[in-house]
Amino acid sequence: MSDFRLTILGSSGALPAYGRFTSAQHLAIRHHQFLIDCGEGCQHQLRRYDLSPQKINHIFISHLHGDHYLGLTGLLFSMHLQRRESDLHLYSFRGLEEILLAQMKHARSSLNFKVILHPLSDAGPELIFEDDHLTVQSFPMDHKIPTCGFLFREKPRSRSLDKSKLTPGIPVEFMSKLRSGEDIMNDQNEVIYRSDDYTLPPRPSRAYAYCTDTQPSDGVLPIISGVDLLHHEATFMEEEKVKARETKHSTAAEAAKVALQAQVRKLIIGHFSARYKDLNVMLNEARNLFPETYLAQEGEIFEIAD
Amino acid sequence: MSDFRLTILGSSGALPAYGRFTSAQHLAIRHHQFLIDCGEGCQHQLRRYDLSPQKINHIFISHLHGDHYLGLTGLLFSMHLQRRESDLHLYSFRGLEEILLAQMKHARSSLNFKVILHPLSDAGPELIFEDDHLTVQSFPMDHKIPTCGFLFREKPRSRSLDKSKLTPGIPVEFMSKLRSGEDIMNDQNEVIYRSDDYTLPPRPSRAYAYCTDTQPSDGVLPIISGVDLLHHEATFMEEEKVKARETKHSTAAEAAKVALQAQVRKLIIGHFSARYKDLNVMLNEARNLFPETYLAQEGEIFEIAD
Repeated sequence: MSDFRLTILGSSGALPAYGRFTSAQHLAIRHHQFLIDCGEGCQHQLRRYDLSPQKINHIFISHLHGDHYLGLTGLLFSMHLQRRESDLHLYSFRGLEEILLAQMKHARSSLNFKVILHPLSDAGPELIFEDDHLTVQSFPMDHKIPTCGFLFREKPRSRSLDKSKLTPGIPVEFMSKLRSGEDIMNDQNEVIYRSDDYTLPPRPSRAYAYCTDTQPSDGVLPIISGVDLLHHEATFMEEEKVKARETKHSTAAEAAKVALQAQVRKLIIGHFSARYKDLNVMLNEARNLFPETYLAQEGEIFEIAD
Repeated sequence: MSDFRLTILGSSGALPAYGRFTSAQHLAIRHHQFLIDCGEGCQHQLRRYDLSPQKINHIFISHLHGDHYLGLTGLLFSMHLQRRESDLHLYSFRGLEEILLAQMKHARSSLNFKVILHPLSDAGPELIFEDDHLTVQSFPMDHKIPTCGFLFREKPRSRSLDKSKLTPGIPVEFMSKLRSGEDIMNDQNEVIYRSDDYTLPPRPSRAYAYCTDTQPSDGVLPIISGVDLLHHEATFMEEEKVKARETKHSTAAEAAKVALQAQVRKLIIGHFSARYKDLNVMLNEARNLFPETYLAQEGEIFEIAD
C-alpha cells in the first residue's frame, strides 16, 4: 500500500443519483489524512471505507455550493461526540463560518475542539499548507462563485545513498551530507567524496491536483503541469456543451484536453450529472483523447507509488 | 396497503452508526405525504425507499439540533434541480431561515419554488395544519432547546350507510344528510328517516404521534392519549438513566411507560444512541412494560388500517 493514496467518497454532481454521493475525497499522504470537499453523507462514506474522521486534521472546501460542504456540520458534530480534542484546520472561502456559527447558535452547542479557519482567495495561486515534506496550494477555478482547486505536492526529496558504491572507509557522519547533495572536502578544500559518485538522484516528488467545478481554464495548466494524478470535473458530455458553458462546468472531453495539455500521468474524471446513469460513455469520451483516464467511483482508490 | 403509512428513514441518535441514519420519517396519509425531521442523508433514504421528494409538500422539523435537519438543504436543492414548482411548507422553530438564507447567499442561489415558513412555538399545543380530513398539532417536548412533537389526527369521520337497512323507497338526496347524522323530516316536522336507523357509527379516526428528543413529560399524556401509533425517542437504556437526565433524553423503559400511561395502541422506539449495536436489548426493556413495542429501523413501514 502506497503512502500517497486517494479514496473517492463522492463522485456525483449537485444532484446525487444512482447511489452516487456528492463531492468528497480522502487523501492520505504519509502521516497526513486530508479531506477534500465534504458533501452530504461524507461521514457515512468515511465509515463505510474504514477511514477515521478523528485522524483528519485538515479539511479543504473548494467552494460554497451545497454539494461540496453540506456534510461538514454533521461530520464536525460527530467528531465532537466522539470526544475529539485536537485542532481541525478548515480551508474555505469566507461565508462558511457564518453558516457554521448560525447552526451552532440555534443548536445552543459548541465543539470541544478548536476549528481554525483559513480563508481561501481566488486572486491567484496561494500556498495554504506546508510542512517538512509537503505543500498544499490553492488555485482559482472558473466557476459561478469563487472556487479553488488544490495541489498537493511533496517537497523535493533528498538523494539516496548508492549502496553499491559505498566502501567501509567512509565515515558515517558524511552520509547525510552526501545525501543532501553536498560534497565532502578535506582541510585543504579538496573534494574527497563527491555526492554524485555515492548517491542516486532523488526519487521524483509526487503530486495530486484536484480541479473541482470549473469550465476549462488555461490558467491552471502551469500549476497542475506534470502531476502524477489529476482529478478534473466532467459534469457533462460533449453533446451537452452548451449546458456546460451555461453552468460553468466541463465536459469529459474537455477534462481530457486539460490532462493532455498539462501532460499529467493519470486523469480521474468526476462530478457527474444525474442525467448519466452509465458512466462508461463518459469514460470513453475522455479516453479517446487521453487514454489514461479513470472514473471517480465511490470507494475507488488511486495510489501514487513511491 | 393502508392510506395511513409511516416509513422510517432514520432511527439513529445524534451520532449515526451501524448503517443507521439520523432522524427522518415519511408519513403518507390519504393524498398527503409529510416529512418529519430531515437528518443528513434523508434525500438518499427517500430515494432508497422509492418515495418521491416532489410529492412532499409539508416538512416538520422538531428542533434545530443538526441530527434533525442537516439533510434539509440538500433535499431542497435537489427539489430545485428536479424542477419543483409547487410551494413547500416548512414547520420549524425560528432560526432555520437564518441558516437557509446564509447557505443560499453564499451559494448565490435561490430556489425556483416558494418555501413557506411556519414558525413553531413551545408555549403549548398548537394547531399548525388543517384540511377537510386532517389536523396536525405541535406540542412542546422537554429537551435542551425548544423542541416540538407532532400529532397527526384524522378529523371525525362521517357515519356510513347501513346497506342492509336501505330500502329502494328512500330518495337518494337524503343519503348524505343521513350519513352526516341528520334526521329527515317531512313538512309537518315529523321525523320520517332517523339517521341512527339507517347508518353505522363512524369508523374511528386514526392518529399518529411523534415524540422526538425529550425526557419523559407528563404534559404530553393528554395530547397523545389513545393514539393508534406513538413514536417515542429511546436514546438510552435504564442503565444509562443518569446520562438520559443529563442530556434530556429518555430510556426505552421510560418510552414504554409513556405508551402505557397514554394508553396508545402501538409504540415505536427510536433515536438510538451509537453505544447500542444490538437493539434487541432496548426492545426487550420496553416490551417488559409495553408488549406492543417495535423498533424504528430504516425502511420499516408501520400502517394504521382503515
